[in-house]
Amino acid sequence: MKENNLETVTSLSSDLSTRENITIQLEELLIAGNYDEAKLLLEPSQPVDIADAIGSLPLILQALAFRLLKKNEAIEVYEYLDPVVQQTLLERLRSGEVLEIVEKMSPDDRVQLFDELPAKVVRKFLSALSPGERKVTAELLGYEPETAGRLMTTEFIDLKEMQTAAEALSLVRKRAPFTETIYSLYVTDKERHLTGILSLRDLVTADPSRPIGDVMTRDVVNISTNTNQEEVARAIQRYDFLALPVVDKEKRLVGIVTVDDLIDVIEQEATRDIYAAGAVQPGDEDDYFQSSLFTIARRRILWLLILVLANGLTTKVIAMNDQILKEIVLLAAFIPLLIGTGGNVGAQSSTVVIRGLSTQKLKSLGAIRAVVKEAITGALLGVFMMLVVFPFAWWQGEGPLIASAVGISLISITTLAATTGAILPLLFDKMKLDPALMSSPFITTVTDIAGVFIYLSTAKWLLNSSLT
Amino acid sequence: MKENNLETVTSLSSDLSTRENITIQLEELLIAGNYDEAKLLLEPSQPVDIADAIGSLPLILQALAFRLLKKNEAIEVYEYLDPVVQQTLLERLRSGEVLEIVEKMSPDDRVQLFDELPAKVVRKFLSALSPGERKVTAELLGYEPETAGRLMTTEFIDLKEMQTAAEALSLVRKRAPFTETIYSLYVTDKERHLTGILSLRDLVTADPSRPIGDVMTRDVVNISTNTNQEEVARAIQRYDFLALPVVDKEKRLVGIVTVDDLIDVIEQEATRDIYAAGAVQPGDEDDYFQSSLFTIARRRILWLLILVLANGLTTKVIAMNDQILKEIVLLAAFIPLLIGTGGNVGAQSSTVVIRGLSTQKLKSLGAIRAVVKEAITGALLGVFMMLVVFPFAWWQGEGPLIASAVGISLISITTLAATTGAILPLLFDKMKLDPALMSSPFITTVTDIAGVFIYLSTAKWLLNSSLT
Repeated sequence: MKENNLETVTSLSSDLSTRENITIQLEELLIAGNYDEAKLLLEPSQPVDIADAIGSLPLILQALAFRLLKKNEAIEVYEYLDPVVQQTLLERLRSGEVLEIVEKMSPDDRVQLFDELPAKVVRKFLSALSPGERKVTAELLGYEPETAGRLMTTEFIDLKEMQTAAEALSLVRKRAPFTETIYSLYVTDKERHLTGILSLRDLVTADPSRPIGDVMTRDVVNISTNTNQEEVARAIQRYDFLALPVVDKEKRLVGIVTVDDLIDVIEQEATRDIYAAGAVQPGDEDDYFQSSLFTIARRRILWLLILVLANGLTTKVIAMNDQILKEIVLLAAFIPLLIGTGGNVGAQSSTVVIRGLSTQKLKSLGAIRAVVKEAITGALLGVFMMLVVFPFAWWQGEGPLIASAVGISLISITTLAATTGAILPLLFDKMKLDPALMSSPFITTVTDIAGVFIYLSTAKWLLNSSLT
Repeated sequence: MKENNLETVTSLSSDLSTRENITIQLEELLIAGNYDEAKLLLEPSQPVDIADAIGSLPLILQALAFRLLKKNEAIEVYEYLDPVVQQTLLERLRSGEVLEIVEKMSPDDRVQLFDELPAKVVRKFLSALSPGERKVTAELLGYEPETAGRLMTTEFIDLKEMQTAAEALSLVRKRAPFTETIYSLYVTDKERHLTGILSLRDLVTADPSRPIGDVMTRDVVNISTNTNQEEVARAIQRYDFLALPVVDKEKRLVGIVTVDDLIDVIEQEATRDIYAAGAVQPGDEDDYFQSSLFTIARRRILWLLILVLANGLTTKVIAMNDQILKEIVLLAAFIPLLIGTGGNVGAQSSTVVIRGLSTQKLKSLGAIRAVVKEAITGALLGVFMMLVVFPFAWWQGEGPLIASAVGISLISITTLAATTGAILPLLFDKMKLDPALMSSPFITTVTDIAGVFIYLSTAKWLLNSSLT
């Protein structure tokens, strides 16, 4: 994380308004060619706000505005820019400027940028980097996306056991400007194996003459470079850590992940669950608001087609039962109500179960008990709604037959829906598939098919028994 | 946050398994009365893991296990326990033990506990607290839930401008054990007004002889005690802060909120959106996995009843058009497919828009453009699906009439669904209501009603024009 961000903070109360103002004023000043004013305007703002302002400028002005920034600020602002803007800047800035930025970026942000760039450009940059930075970057690029290896930064402070607290502290002072955090410190042996950790808090409170070895903690969390980012996020969240050390297969310390990067991961994962629940293909949601209509449509059509085909089965079921409909057309009037309700109950169950799985809170309950709980809840809800639906069906359906058909199938549908809504995600989880795939839209469609079948069969059975 | 948590960390790789083992072993040891062994077992574990283990013990053993912990560890473990377990412990521990815990808890955690307790018990505890702690707690309890006032801790380090970096650092050393974080430091004047902030990073890197006034930053974020927790979370996330200072109406520094508390807020808010998207009443989702069937049912029935009543309108619409159904029964077979698809498209739009609003990413696009974008996407998707649905409808619907009715209404339904899916959440947001209320289930039901009407009217019109 960037503790130095604590510097120059604009007031939050007037936050949003000021942010928008900055953009507008900045554009005016640049067009007017009043660059000193523009500088003064950006002076007190936060890097992330400046990045926003530059991002929302017309393309031709972006590079211009960016050049107004002080060197070190420019780097930080650049790290906050949207990948899209980052790339346009790369094209518009002089290659000298570009190389300096890329060289000075923190390795994790640099890798994120390189991920977006065409391989050819990446190779060019890599070769232009200083040997040290090149090695680091190539290393990070080697790791799977969405793993600790990709999230981590290689800028951390490692100490040796024999150093005294005083020596260590002065070393921290020296290294502070070049490292991402100084609050989590790491102790390694000659082979760069992680032997312990200590917080700056431990260090400043320790007796200056004591060796680090006595102050540090020896059992340390071992995240490996291929640990999934979600798992890392959960760990940081669970233990209230500021950073976690990342080790390679040989247990050598290769980097650290910091809490600020993991907050973004937590939000990203939440967005994916939400999108899945809305039958939107979980992709890189950030760029939705920039991406083209066809990209958006492409992201949604797949799910829709799967669901529409499934819905075709509902059509088939009804078509096969058109006899009973011919006899009692009014039966059709209750189909949407029944399958709609079934869908809603199923959605509720799958939502709770899927979320419970992804926040790992479901563990406390256990899969089987969760399913049973949902099944009973479904039945209960069915009974509750009967009290409203039955009289309504009697009135609209002109008599007891339709009312009973609706009532009976309502309860069976809600029970079935809640059970499937709970079972399918858990099943997918067991099969190491993403439970979010079994979210509301899918459950709804499944209940549609079953629901229509239950309803019409019940009606047929009631009709026959009433005739005999 | 608790930097001292960096102490004694169990390896993450073997994390889950060990956690479960601890619980089992602990129970066995306690039943066997082997308390020294139990102590040794808990020794190296993280407070949060110990809390989990104790929480999953049978009630009678919980107090027993808790007594095995060292005093200061006991406090921290207690802060991590579920409210439910916290309360049962309160009943089972000697009042002396209880008071000590409550006295030593950090103010924000204490207030969270008090929120759960009956007012009578809270009053008892308040009167038993030391004057200082009582004042602080009463103060925090005075703030609205889900505001910065409730989240903040009153344990922070405030410095004075004239102090030198060296003086400040030694002061930090002294105060470190009694404060929640030492990484964000705050500078106040005689009236306790916040005049600046500096990070421990700034402090250790500063020239020891320089006064704080020269090192600190003067423009500071002003969160007020009644700022909503979600807004606070966004700010921390946006600026990568470790903590934010909280000031009262007179701009006096009264507390700080730390990043670890806000990670939980971010997840909590995400869960609410997800629940809303699943028509589950957004409540305190944490306790779902403990709460009774009736509580769960109660949380869901309200939404279901609203939706089932709305669905009643669909029934009405069909009933009013039963003439056309009598003539062509097969029309009914396509109702579920059409409204199902409409519902799915609407769900997609509302999902993207609602999430965009809550992550504030939609700002970059703007409301009107978002709606237009969704409307066009809806139309596009309708056309795509036509290519599959039309031939299917021709075959199943035995001829062009049903096929055309289905095709025409499909496109109008998807367009309408996408538009409403985008407009309604934005409208709610404008009206300062929670946009999440306009989530998939609601949109789906609205589309059901409109969809059936469009479909049957189209069919009627086609039939009449084919007859004439």
